Amino acid sequence: MDMAPEEFRRAAHQAVDWMADYLATSRERPVLPAVQPGKLTDALPRHAPERGEPISEILADFERLIPPATTHWNHPRFFAYFAVSGSGPGIIGEMLTAALNVNGMLWKSGPAVTELEQVTLGWLREWLGLPPEFFGIIYDTASISTMHALAAAREMTDPEARKRGGLGDLVLYTSEQSHSSVEKGAITIGIGQQNVRRVPVDERFEMKPAALREMIEADVHAGRKPFCVVATVGTTSTTSVDPVGQIADITEQHGLWLHVDGAYAGVAAMLPEMHGLLAAASRAHSLVTNPHKWMLTPIDCSAFYTRRPDLLRQAFSLVPEYLNTAEHPRAVNLMDYGVQLGRRFRALKLWFVMRYFGREGLAETMRTHIAIAQRFAELVRGDKRFELAAPVPFSVVCFRYAGSDEENRLLIEEINARTNSFLSHTVLNGRYVVRLAVGHARTTWEDVQPVWDTMQSFADGRGAAAGR
Amino acid sequence: MDMAPEEFRRAAHQAVDWMADYLATSRERPVLPAVQPGKLTDALPRHAPERGEPISEILADFERLIPPATTHWNHPRFFAYFAVSGSGPGIIGEMLTAALNVNGMLWKSGPAVTELEQVTLGWLREWLGLPPEFFGIIYDTASISTMHALAAAREMTDPEARKRGGLGDLVLYTSEQSHSSVEKGAITIGIGQQNVRRVPVDERFEMKPAALREMIEADVHAGRKPFCVVATVGTTSTTSVDPVGQIADITEQHGLWLHVDGAYAGVAAMLPEMHGLLAAASRAHSLVTNPHKWMLTPIDCSAFYTRRPDLLRQAFSLVPEYLNTAEHPRAVNLMDYGVQLGRRFRALKLWFVMRYFGREGLAETMRTHIAIAQRFAELVRGDKRFELAAPVPFSVVCFRYAGSDEENRLLIEEINARTNSFLSHTVLNGRYVVRLAVGHARTTWEDVQPVWDTMQSFADGRGAAAGR
Repeated sequence: MDMAPEEFRRAAHQAVDWMADYLATSRERPVLPAVQPGKLTDALPRHAPERGEPISEILADFERLIPPATTHWNHPRFFAYFAVSGSGPGIIGEMLTAALNVNGMLWKSGPAVTELEQVTLGWLREWLGLPPEFFGIIYDTASISTMHALAAAREMTDPEARKRGGLGDLVLYTSEQSHSSVEKGAITIGIGQQNVRRVPVDERFEMKPAALREMIEADVHAGRKPFCVVATVGTTSTTSVDPVGQIADITEQHGLWLHVDGAYAGVAAMLPEMHGLLAAASRAHSLVTNPHKWMLTPIDCSAFYTRRPDLLRQAFSLVPEYLNTAEHPRAVNLMDYGVQLGRRFRALKLWFVMRYFGREGLAETMRTHIAIAQRFAELVRGDKRFELAAPVPFSVVCFRYAGSDEENRLLIEEINARTNSFLSHTVLNGRYVVRLAVGHARTTWEDVQPVWDTMQSFADGRGAAAGR
Repeated sequence: MDMAPEEFRRAAHQAVDWMADYLATSRERPVLPAVQPGKLTDALPRHAPERGEPISEILADFERLIPPATTHWNHPRFFAYFAVSGSGPGIIGEMLTAALNVNGMLWKSGPAVTELEQVTLGWLREWLGLPPEFFGIIYDTASISTMHALAAAREMTDPEARKRGGLGDLVLYTSEQSHSSVEKGAITIGIGQQNVRRVPVDERFEMKPAALREMIEADVHAGRKPFCVVATVGTTSTTSVDPVGQIADITEQHGLWLHVDGAYAGVAAMLPEMHGLLAAASRAHSLVTNPHKWMLTPIDCSAFYTRRPDLLRQAFSLVPEYLNTAEHPRAVNLMDYGVQLGRRFRALKLWFVMRYFGREGLAETMRTHIAIAQRFAELVRGDKRFELAAPVPFSVVCFRYAGSDEENRLLIEEINARTNSFLSHTVLNGRYVVRLAVGHARTTWEDVQPVWDTMQSFADGRGAAAGR
């Protein structure tokens, strides 16, 4: 039993109208909902319905209850974390994916899932200037991509680990500024948190290669086994870029796996003016970049590349008989390359996005975000009451009001409340820092100007109160 | 820059019409595409477009290229692996999820994502008769759910492992018939394949508790550390049900984590006539069941429950504990409970499905599938030229033509070619076995009858050739 196709048609058209209205008017919605924890829970029935309910009621409840309890990521004034976009063509791709409902475990269970994933990741690889020998696969999140990189690295250094278990002397290196997923991945695969070395960064928040080299040598000297370095192109707090070339010199010398986390910024290599961004990353063993961050693709879609798919496969492949199919040289079975046996048809939305915008359209969007961020940074630089807390290589600005942490906390509150924006914070060198992350497809300078205006009135008010 | 909302509206309406037509006519499509590996790849441009293309062309290419290269899981004659359904309300839920494009990392980044996930999993828990202390979370796949169970189990037995790494003496037990994800999860988290014990099964393909007990005692005697047992309710090959109560007696006695893999069959506990199915599983530490399998929810949606969310959190959380006190008691941060930091709004489609069909509607659909499978099994039982290869507790029938493995391979080929169905195989007791997995929302007996008819003509032809 399913919904009748004509009932589906009517209800889905109704949903599309809501979606189109939502996209057209999202700027007018509060980006942060005015809800307390538990409010939605309390508004919902305590028990599920025994009997089915009409779709019209469900859609009405959706409109009434869900958007008012939603933090609107698909909103041009969302400046928190990394701003993302569920673009029109990407949403349409997801709609078709849901209707097909394919599970691309192996080639036979989803030829189009398998091949379109290879083709679109090949296209993207070319845009980013990555070498043709990089094998691409789509996972759900960068956290999972990085965990797979670590597992392949483990396989390279300790090929018996898969069978034997028991690691304990493998050591991983990543900067103090790297994403929590690196440490979490290491914990998950049994490396142990104490074997994750946090390499210091310089004043630009970039990993210090000399410190990395010293730490590796000290571990080798102590009889431990360095196995992997994770460098970042676009760190989470400041979008700093580790010196990947110098890091690659070290990993190559010591025979370590080099993984590059370009989850946010990696895709920027498709801009001609940033074409060298991943040049050194071409020397890496693996790289992740997330089209669902800055590349207008609805979540989830994380692109993982590796020059050693053989090791990834060796680390994970386990083919049960019921999935045993005759091997064809052109039939990749994606289930062999990771933890997850099943996978959604994520390449479909990526294909829609890449074709609809083209490289130029995507590059132009990122260029616009970068220009907005640079303009904002310029304003911050020109006002002594504020300071930039980090360089601005891409579209994220870290700044502070030249006051206490508490004042900066108040500043965020005031911006978010007065301008219908959502900015979040980070901590750099022990100080509370405000982040403006520009990245939504429909963000314009007019969305950012009110943030600056509020900062001005905030500083004016403080200055007056302090008699400055 | 994004697609203009009115352009989105037009194109999305067009997509909906295609989707409604697809659902209405999918039975007429070939369930298995007539493609060779590489054909779609060769039909696609070698390079991505520099400039954007009109959405009309992309949609036209989708229609022309993708469905003919797709294995149609959303097809009433898909009988392979486990049959699944992307139902109408579930698809609409996915559409809205794509438009909102929320990332539910923490409560603040997605109150509705967080709370609706807790509410729908609470509803489902009640339907399945699971205890109220089970904490629920949605992951993408059962493989990831099970990996998280193993990591929490590791945390319970060896709380220093997270920090120290280095396992190697922890031992996991699961039956010979359990899903490959159990072993893969153990490999991933560093347990080592050699520390995964495959417990023998009886003639019904159910784990032998006595053998489990012996293996655990032998390992304890040898100084190893048993830490976890994975029991299955609905194994992948035959849907057999391990004796969870007897297994729980053993795990409780030895202080081991008990994880129940009910990925396929767990949801059947919502049928009144199967209400006891998960009664013993209530004693487990964790359980997974996938609404995206038999519960009409588009992939991906895997429901994971645990009575020890504290251990799951301890295994994965990277937020310093002192920050937790400032949290609101009702604001769960789902990122703390797993590898993935980000998550799609998967609960939305589940909410749509649970409400649209109600418990009765979902139960009735499963009941129909079970009745179809039982009727088919009855026919097999009544024909000496065929044999049932396993009991049929749910909606999957494992059977053989009473001939060679090669003849059974030919039988599948003939069924799939002649009836526009897709059946797959497994191997039981070293013999090649055909599987008929009934589970699509729109499957009726009329879809299965041709399979039986083809089996008849196959057997008639063989019998005549052999002079039987």
